[in-house]
Amino acid sequence: MAFSTKNCIIIIVLALFLLFSSSSSSAFPMGKKQKHKPCKQLVLYFHDIIYNGKNAANATSAIVAAPEGANLTILAPQFHFGNIAVFDDPITLDNNLHSKPVGRAQGMYIYDTKNTFTSWLAFSFSLNYTAYEGTINFIGADPIMVKTRDISVVGGTGDFFMHRGVATIMTDAFEGEVYFRLRVDIKFYECW
Amino acid sequence: MAFSTKNCIIIIVLALFLLFSSSSSSAFPMGKKQKHKPCKQLVLYFHDIIYNGKNAANATSAIVAAPEGANLTILAPQFHFGNIAVFDDPITLDNNLHSKPVGRAQGMYIYDTKNTFTSWLAFSFSLNYTAYEGTINFIGADPIMVKTRDISVVGGTGDFFMHRGVATIMTDAFEGEVYFRLRVDIKFYECW
Amino acid sequence: MAFSTKNCIIIIVLALFLLFSSSSSSAFPMGKKQKHKPCKQLVLYFHDIIYNGKNAANATSAIVAAPEGANLTILAPQFHFGNIAVFDDPITLDNNLHSKPVGRAQGMYIYDTKNTFTSWLAFSFSLNYTAYEGTINFIGADPIMVKTRDISVVGGTGDFFMHRGVATIMTDAFEGEVYFRLRVDIKFYECW
Repeated sequence: MAFSTKNCIIIIVLALFLLFSSSSSSAFPMGKKQKHKPCKQLVLYFHDIIYNGKNAANATSAIVAAPEGANLTILAPQFHFGNIAVFDDPITLDNNLHSKPVGRAQGMYIYDTKNTFTSWLAFSFSLNYTAYEGTINFIGADPIMVKTRDISVVGGTGDFFMHRGVATIMTDAFEGEVYFRLRVDIKFYECW
Repeated sequence: MAFSTKNCIIIIVLALFLLFSSSSSSAFPMGKKQKHKPCKQLVLYFHDIIYNGKNAANATSAIVAAPEGANLTILAPQFHFGNIAVFDDPITLDNNLHSKPVGRAQGMYIYDTKNTFTSWLAFSFSLNYTAYEGTINFIGADPIMVKTRDISVVGGTGDFFMHRGVATIMTDAFEGEVYFRLRVDIKFYECW
Repeated sequence: MAFSTKNCIIIIVLALFLLFSSSSSSAFPMGKKQKHKPCKQLVLYFHDIIYNGKNAANATSAIVAAPEGANLTILAPQFHFGNIAVFDDPITLDNNLHSKPVGRAQGMYIYDTKNTFTSWLAFSFSLNYTAYEGTINFIGADPIMVKTRDISVVGGTGDFFMHRGVATIMTDAFEGEVYFRLRVDIKFYECW
């Protein structure tokens, strides 16, 4: 069979096309034009009960730092500016505080504005259930009064080895200044 | 036209060369040999006024933790070792504290050495102006006495979706122990 | 020489195979199937001596935040829940506290559980010796009672420019509640 340069070029172009299609559907997009489709996604809830001096048995977090003049059983005046809370909160698959936990959310949050409620988050999810075992590490600004807030998923271990992504946080419920529940929609864009 | 294996190989080599050239000019370098040219760069300033017990109206940060024996209105002795400050600082495009802010720098810094001034930073930029809307998340060691210090840009959201990079920090000015201004040269090497 | 389409396809397949083999042995794996072999690995030790009110000269860390009712010279009751310590610890190549330091581990740890010992880490290694100069930034959950714990390496600067990876932490030794030594096996999977 006769074979032309043109045919060879067509085959090469097709091969490169296949190469690019397969790599753009992989976890590692090659540039700005990919569609930003998560390679893995999880929706989880976590539940925070702040220690207020009376709820030692149930509390899952405690104020451990406060600005001058404030104390550690009441969130600080001025939109809690300057409070740091340490937490160990149960993670559940649905929005029910009493569902069987699938892991713990552990770390800290800071209240960091004097004229509105904003916080700053640095924490890990330690998951341990049928679907996943491993940790996910988060940091980011959390402007609480905005309906949904995006923070960074900066790394992971175990089933989330080297993963990166963005987590969308939503205050799903709160009761006074003692309980709040966050819905976290974790979208990984780098999976390994 | 006669067509040889050699010709075909040359075409393939050329095609692969083009493939590599294009991918190395993309945001996702493929190995160690790329030139580390930022895919995006921003120079911004932020301004920190520490609460000292007298400047409540102007202060943008507060000492919220201190080692034993220290208080929360004066930075601790021993090079402020053990102080944690929470901040919500205005970000400006130039070095003028009174320029219109383009966002807020929010998070915490720690003084972490007993025999020199070093700090450790964990914070976010929330930007909201004509050029950019989104957040940038930083962590890293900040050896204050060194002229320029590099910290990690570990993630971003919005216009900085999934970005990573390095930020070079410089103390642009300071006044006693109450005001300091940092120049931040943010170089993204992973853009999406 | 006669040349068939089949030959050309074989050559292309070989070329693409070579392309993929070379990229999977590079620092940037392309998908889930690569072998997760570190592109760089370091084993280091760091040494933490907590200030207890009596060891000011030797202490490398200090409790700077505590829950209500606790103080800053004794780790808090309830598994130290709520304590934040700031540290500036020497890093050594072997497990000897008195070896010449190759850098400093600087940052903070939090005790974050009420019914067991777990901590949460956010810190940097600043290395400065013959082999490496630069910083490595870490965050992650540290369930102390587990033999080995994985945390995220979220970025780096200098010789660790833009690196990412996983660090496996092991408590190598401890003495009461004043001294502990961690062995850190840092495996980078993204090198630049």
